[in-house]
Amino acid sequence: MSVKERKRSDYVFFLDYRTRWTDNDMYSHLTNTVYNVLIDSVVNTYLIKHCGLNPTTSPSIALMVASQITFISQTSFPAVLDIGLRVNKLGNSSVTYECGVFERGMEDVRAVGGYTHVFCDSVNRRPMTMEKTFREGLEKLLVKEGPKL
Amino acid sequence: MSVKERKRSDYVFFLDYRTRWTDNDMYSHLTNTVYNVLIDSVVNTYLIKHCGLNPTTSPSIALMVASQITFISQTSFPAVLDIGLRVNKLGNSSVTYECGVFERGMEDVRAVGGYTHVFCDSVNRRPMTMEKTFREGLEKLLVKEGPKL
Amino acid sequence: MSVKERKRSDYVFFLDYRTRWTDNDMYSHLTNTVYNVLIDSVVNTYLIKHCGLNPTTSPSIALMVASQITFISQTSFPAVLDIGLRVNKLGNSSVTYECGVFERGMEDVRAVGGYTHVFCDSVNRRPMTMEKTFREGLEKLLVKEGPKL
Amino acid sequence: MSVKERKRSDYVFFLDYRTRWTDNDMYSHLTNTVYNVLIDSVVNTYLIKHCGLNPTTSPSIALMVASQITFISQTSFPAVLDIGLRVNKLGNSSVTYECGVFERGMEDVRAVGGYTHVFCDSVNRRPMTMEKTFREGLEKLLVKEGPKL
Repeated sequence: MSVKERKRSDYVFFLDYRTRWTDNDMYSHLTNTVYNVLIDSVVNTYLIKHCGLNPTTSPSIALMVASQITFISQTSFPAVLDIGLRVNKLGNSSVTYECGVFERGMEDVRAVGGYTHVFCDSVNRRPMTMEKTFREGLEKLLVKEGPKL
Repeated sequence: MSVKERKRSDYVFFLDYRTRWTDNDMYSHLTNTVYNVLIDSVVNTYLIKHCGLNPTTSPSIALMVASQITFISQTSFPAVLDIGLRVNKLGNSSVTYECGVFERGMEDVRAVGGYTHVFCDSVNRRPMTMEKTFREGLEKLLVKEGPKL
Repeated sequence: MSVKERKRSDYVFFLDYRTRWTDNDMYSHLTNTVYNVLIDSVVNTYLIKHCGLNPTTSPSIALMVASQITFISQTSFPAVLDIGLRVNKLGNSSVTYECGVFERGMEDVRAVGGYTHVFCDSVNRRPMTMEKTFREGLEKLLVKEGPKL
Repeated sequence: MSVKERKRSDYVFFLDYRTRWTDNDMYSHLTNTVYNVLIDSVVNTYLIKHCGLNPTTSPSIALMVASQITFISQTSFPAVLDIGLRVNKLGNSSVTYECGVFERGMEDVRAVGGYTHVFCDSVNRRPMTMEKTFREGLEKLLVKEGPKL
């Protein structure tokens, strides 16, 4: 399956992000790295609001170990974007997310990206087994069936 | 009048901005320069959507000559912010905006800032008289009465 | 005295910053808010390297209460910028910085801005008297003579 | 070969980037997406300074189609980073870059990432054969021997 075929219905959790003046680059479209910023934002918002993460006080935090993204078509400020989130893989201490970037009012996906978080002790930043609240929250985003990328 | 007394009703046009993971700094609150980014974003969105600006093709563009901002209380990711916009002064070739930053669901203003735009020829970037579509759009935001800052 | 007359010799401490692809906006020049980011960066680097600040462990931290900036002429990626720093006012618990932005190899100032930091207890974030290591470091940047802005 | 074994000598072209206050996130280290920004910056600086690209006037521009990155160990503001660049694959209309991120004065690589650029007509943004000046500049970065990732 091609990432270009991803639809809104392939994702479980959505947040809308209004783009900013600084998001467009000299080519008058969203600069590529802004997509990575938005993906990291929807993931951490979910962890904070639905998994109990408090970045400054939680005994364990989630650190990114690798990310990748494919750009399909462009969008630009001042569009509003809908970022869809799903979990493709849930391990003992790690989770792999996939996000689809859509423009408000349009169906075709603009970019599909994702990354892997490893849960770590917040002090020494060594990997540890994922806490129960994280697992329970992330399981709600896990997509077990259908074509994977 | 103190900027701390600014209320939502002091502003004419509003846009909501969802904050991003990268907006918080080491002090776990919105880093100050993000407020400037949001203010520049609401202004340019208004110019594009309500005054006919096309940043890449318009014969005249608006360039910032000076900005200032006062920080009153902090906010942090993942809050949603409402940015209120008004015009305090409308000249022949320039306009001075004021923006108030509010957190979704709360009344007290977090920051009050603004800046002056000078309309310039898009090629040589020299000041010129503001085009009619800009003036008509900006007049709708002009607040002529009440306490100024 | 006009800010346009500021020279490199008006500043005490300098750091060079290489600009980034994302710094340019649709007008193909540095977007205005990047200047604010660079000014905040040179100040905090000085506080960390020359005044003993550790943002995560110091008992007191410096929080911005107001900033302002004047834009004189444009610059753009991939230029390297030299940011000059001076202290214009040193109070009991606050300090007011001024920065000049210069382009590598050129003499005319591109922007002059600054802001006021208030030193606060890192836990409750209430103002407190500046610690001795901050005062000693900042005194080295204090310019007592000559024209002020 | 593991990305963790990448050394400075594996890269052909280097630029140094001073980190900024806004680069650190709540975990007091460089937020992951900043690495992507720096990689995009060194590539575009090379294209502008050594391949004749002018983003606003060149008949063809380079657009990103996919990127990926692996994070090995953290770094933080106010470090200065050295970004090493090499070309791993040079096609008819596309080029694949690899970058290594190093901290000034230290040997171990902090992150290894890269992306693929497709050269496109600047007006309709359709792929086209790479212009000669781009090819000649990029060939100087091409690493044909040794372990690939």
